[in-house]
Amino acid sequence: MSAGGLADPGLTRKGRATRERIVRAAAALMFERGATGTSLDEVQAAAGVSSSQIYHYFQDKKVLIRAVISRQTDEVLGAQEPLLSELDSVESLRRWRDQIVGIQRERQCEGGCPIGSLAGQLAEVDPLARKDLADGFERWESAIRSGLLAMRDRGDLRADADAERLGTALLVALQGGLLLTQVHRNTTALEAGLDTVIEHIASLASDTARRLR
Amino acid sequence: MSAGGLADPGLTRKGRATRERIVRAAAALMFERGATGTSLDEVQAAAGVSSSQIYHYFQDKKVLIRAVISRQTDEVLGAQEPLLSELDSVESLRRWRDQIVGIQRERQCEGGCPIGSLAGQLAEVDPLARKDLADGFERWESAIRSGLLAMRDRGDLRADADAERLGTALLVALQGGLLLTQVHRNTTALEAGLDTVIEHIASLASDTARRLR
Repeated sequence: MSAGGLADPGLTRKGRATRERIVRAAAALMFERGATGTSLDEVQAAAGVSSSQIYHYFQDKKVLIRAVISRQTDEVLGAQEPLLSELDSVESLRRWRDQIVGIQRERQCEGGCPIGSLAGQLAEVDPLARKDLADGFERWESAIRSGLLAMRDRGDLRADADAERLGTALLVALQGGLLLTQVHRNTTALEAGLDTVIEHIASLASDTARRLR
Repeated sequence: MSAGGLADPGLTRKGRATRERIVRAAAALMFERGATGTSLDEVQAAAGVSSSQIYHYFQDKKVLIRAVISRQTDEVLGAQEPLLSELDSVESLRRWRDQIVGIQRERQCEGGCPIGSLAGQLAEVDPLARKDLADGFERWESAIRSGLLAMRDRGDLRADADAERLGTALLVALQGGLLLTQVHRNTTALEAGLDTVIEHIASLASDTARRLR
């Protein structure tokens, strides 16, 4: 987790609750209007805190943005559990895909990926935010990769299948699919991207695994 | 092409040149700092025009943004030619992939996709821009799709291969790969995403096409 996301361990329970209220309000506003399009004044109003309270917890907007990235990473990865930690079969990959597509439909395909959207907004203008986002994507990819490595180690994937690269390709399909879903307001691209990579993984199932199906 | 991108046909040659200079300056600034992070004052300074000149050609920033989207779409698609119009073999798909990866390396993986970045910034805050971006992505996808449909019609892909969906999956891999390339500052994800989809397409080559190789 990034330093920007760690609550000060010296905070009282009330202090932690106030800080949490500010981060939650900031995350919601930035998901709706973007990080650049959200001012500290708006966060203050939405969180119902005073300006001195905001500055007590966050020196400036950049520090708040890092806390939002950390929170959104936890939220996005958490929302995919328990599936995300169990992507060790083609069946569970398909269930994960269905869950992600379902979430986008519930949201009327608005907003895209909370982490991916921040990446598109901040990667060139805020180097520390870019680094935090890279760490967040690495956590995500690592979870996906673990399942595929387990499949290969168990002999469900051919020994020559590059499980790490396939894990990266799944996150790529997810990110590209979420961006196009947001722009087109339908899930066609998200489904096409994820299904193509999952079908490719299925085609790399070992003969032993195929026989056992 | 979007209405926002069409130069007024009533403009003089000098007028067209001034308008073009403004759009070029705005596109460069927005690629660097984002659309929200770029003010009309900055565009004015970079283009070396007066404020009344900017407002003569563009009523407001939103109209200028639409012209930038149109220009960036033309630029991005144009930069991929002649390959983009000839993606009708696995070999040309691989050449196209190499060209895209090469461009990112030349740019030190900075900036991401000029269209994808604008999408992440504008999709939720500017409905007309979102529509223009959707049209731009559709032009891009349509060019990719044409090659795959030609492969299938020629019998190079199995008759049951879904060429349209594979075309969508390629653009998804490209967009997700460019976003992760921008965040990680290396092309690993872009390569993994594009290679996985291209390998899947190669695995759907018809037996006839395989025999002829």
